Amino acid sequence: MGLQAAMQSHLALHFCFIPMERISLASKKLPTANYKGTRDFYPEDMQFRNWMFSKMETVAESYGYGKYDSPLLESIDLYRAKTGEEIVQKQLYDFIDKGERHVAIRPEMTPSLARMVAARSRELPKPIRWYSIPNLWRYEAPGKGRLREHWQLNVDIFGVNTYRAEVEILQMACDILFAFGAPAESFAVKVSDRRVLNSFFSNTLQLAEDKAQPLAKLLDKRNKISSEEFEKELQGILPDCEKQKPVVMQYLDCSLETIVQIPGIDEKAIADLQFLFTELKSLGVEAQVDFDPSIIRGFDYYTGFIFEIFDTDPENRRSLYGGGRYDNLIGLFSNDQLSGIGFGLGDVTLENFLRTHGLVPEQLGKTHKVFMPLLAEENFAASMQLAKKLRERGVICETMLEGKPKLGKQFAIAEKKGYRYLAILGEDEIQKNTVTLKDLVSGEQSEYKQDEVAEIILGK
Amino acid sequence: MGLQAAMQSHLALHFCFIPMERISLASKKLPTANYKGTRDFYPEDMQFRNWMFSKMETVAESYGYGKYDSPLLESIDLYRAKTGEEIVQKQLYDFIDKGERHVAIRPEMTPSLARMVAARSRELPKPIRWYSIPNLWRYEAPGKGRLREHWQLNVDIFGVNTYRAEVEILQMACDILFAFGAPAESFAVKVSDRRVLNSFFSNTLQLAEDKAQPLAKLLDKRNKISSEEFEKELQGILPDCEKQKPVVMQYLDCSLETIVQIPGIDEKAIADLQFLFTELKSLGVEAQVDFDPSIIRGFDYYTGFIFEIFDTDPENRRSLYGGGRYDNLIGLFSNDQLSGIGFGLGDVTLENFLRTHGLVPEQLGKTHKVFMPLLAEENFAASMQLAKKLRERGVICETMLEGKPKLGKQFAIAEKKGYRYLAILGEDEIQKNTVTLKDLVSGEQSEYKQDEVAEIILGK
Repeated sequence: MGLQAAMQSHLALHFCFIPMERISLASKKLPTANYKGTRDFYPEDMQFRNWMFSKMETVAESYGYGKYDSPLLESIDLYRAKTGEEIVQKQLYDFIDKGERHVAIRPEMTPSLARMVAARSRELPKPIRWYSIPNLWRYEAPGKGRLREHWQLNVDIFGVNTYRAEVEILQMACDILFAFGAPAESFAVKVSDRRVLNSFFSNTLQLAEDKAQPLAKLLDKRNKISSEEFEKELQGILPDCEKQKPVVMQYLDCSLETIVQIPGIDEKAIADLQFLFTELKSLGVEAQVDFDPSIIRGFDYYTGFIFEIFDTDPENRRSLYGGGRYDNLIGLFSNDQLSGIGFGLGDVTLENFLRTHGLVPEQLGKTHKVFMPLLAEENFAASMQLAKKLRERGVICETMLEGKPKLGKQFAIAEKKGYRYLAILGEDEIQKNTVTLKDLVSGEQSEYKQDEVAEIILGK
Repeated sequence: MGLQAAMQSHLALHFCFIPMERISLASKKLPTANYKGTRDFYPEDMQFRNWMFSKMETVAESYGYGKYDSPLLESIDLYRAKTGEEIVQKQLYDFIDKGERHVAIRPEMTPSLARMVAARSRELPKPIRWYSIPNLWRYEAPGKGRLREHWQLNVDIFGVNTYRAEVEILQMACDILFAFGAPAESFAVKVSDRRVLNSFFSNTLQLAEDKAQPLAKLLDKRNKISSEEFEKELQGILPDCEKQKPVVMQYLDCSLETIVQIPGIDEKAIADLQFLFTELKSLGVEAQVDFDPSIIRGFDYYTGFIFEIFDTDPENRRSLYGGGRYDNLIGLFSNDQLSGIGFGLGDVTLENFLRTHGLVPEQLGKTHKVFMPLLAEENFAASMQLAKKLRERGVICETMLEGKPKLGKQFAIAEKKGYRYLAILGEDEIQKNTVTLKDLVSGEQSEYKQDEVAEIILGK
């Protein structure tokens, strides 16, 4: 029975189920486009992704962080309880499964992390140091740096209640960019503490609690709106705008030295930040770190330290990533208290940064690899045997399996596939137990014993 | 503003949206269980997963296969056209997205692979050699070896129309198990060719086309039903059961040598299989490979070579994985013809095999790692600086950030986290620029210069 017959019998068998769809699909071709806002990763794209992820992994592992993962689907209750309203209402990929459970594809990792930590919060030795690089889904209008499926490095430490953990997290956040060869001047780190803002609101401004959130939101978007608009909104929030506005403006421009002049600011928070700067200095990473009381970052979420890292390139001047301390991550699941600090770094954002600053090397793949053309059909067995030997010694070896196309075209395939070396095995070489190794970059070629060529390739 | 206040303000802000849910969630604790049929991967589980995946990756890469990935969601049309009816009807995680598109979480990788290959089928240099380890979702009743989310190694080669590709695929399929240290006798490979079965059906039995599928299904489940049941169903399919049944039984017991005695069997297929065995023999992997005309495997799907690998352990005697040749993978998208061979290996199945045969080493993680207790609060800066030095030289170094708990408990944390070495930095060591390295297994400890200890750890 040929292919056509097999297909017909297949169609016939299921005729009773959805015949029209099957038939129309068989005659009409399906589009090859991927789902909107996502990416297909062809091997060359995947090589880049692997390179980027493995650098991040190496840094996280070097600090003793362990990688974790959670299922892609979670109960929607988790996100209703822990995720911002806008995401849950407008951006969540949620649906009812075949067992009537309301589930969602994870839009962020933290709720799953909280669930996993809470499940074992007592038995896990502290500090808990974990990281992950999950794919996340949000229904967004795709645009530059914004996709529906993206990956995000998540790094978190739990169970250290002093600013010592802040030192480590900030050091690591910088180390990740340094690991890609980013110059110190290519990024700037702004740090603050939620307690600074909170004490400014409640002590300095004596703001009613229901005004705190709107004012925080306004300060956060300050640079995106006109000063008239800012002033107008400020008047709507501050009870005595004329007197309070100068105080707000003074606050926003404060350094760590001048902020103590503002009455009512949380002294412990300032002392903690001073400690942070002292330690960062001794670790040689203070150059690009600055105190900035105006950074807001997840007002509802963080309870202490917050930071945000910005690209300094004028073409790409944007927030790269950030994070902070949250005091009750597992509170939704348990009565235990466990304080943590974490940050998240998206792959699209990082890729933009790396490309803007020319930090992507030309050669991302492994170099210990050869391509073996097939000079004649009768050389097949000898070719396969040599390939086997090379692989056993750790060389990557791809072979042509048929004696066509012509040799020149086989060479072209090797180049197109990015191979630098050709291992040429002719009748002559087979008889002498040798192989000719050709460097496609220099054009040089030499004959080696088959037992020695692996070492030559690995040593080059 | 304290945490409680922040939470209240958060609640207040969104009161208009879903107040009852928020309030009930705030008072009632959420469960920490993961979604049914899935796994949370804690760092120790992830270490196992990484170990397993990286072995598979190393083998695939050694043959020159490039890793690819596709978005998790695809249009449901893709699965309606390419995936088995039962999966689409009963096991698919499909839903309507917020833009009214009917999408599904991938239940298998091949449809996405076909789409991606079809999109670039002309420009991709042949042979196309690709692999992937995607997570896949099926709504199934969870059971041993059957989960709703699992990972599956997918390996495919396209653009080689002779049995040469079969040699490579089968060699690689065996190499994957060998890479885990599987003994040759721990698994058995059964191979056949769809053309053998097809010619037996149409030439030998002269079966009408509508009988081919039911007979194939019956032969496939032969070992799961009683011989009475088998006979009864056989009578319903074969027009002349009395005469034809002995022929069927003879066919099922054939070796590659005896099958030529059955009239009508496709001679090219037999010659191809003979070539395969000759080549496998010269590559030293023929011992566990056998011809078995009774293997069926995806009757609708494969068009040529098929194989299936079985665990030989009596406790775990089951199909591990398999694959075969399909001639029109991209036919749904394009008029181009591109023949391929592929196979898929699930992580749950592989893990069962590895554990059954005792192939999981005790130590899966990296060994060049040390844990640094904090002996006194004032040693913090010195400790962080030494850790930084060690990491820069490639040592994994996790540090305690606070001088509590007591030293004995800090040692216990190191052991619980699986560290073998402790780097102890007391006042004495700090003054002398040294560090004491303690081996938790042997109990030995020695003092080293801080600049030399990295080499000691890496060299051990």
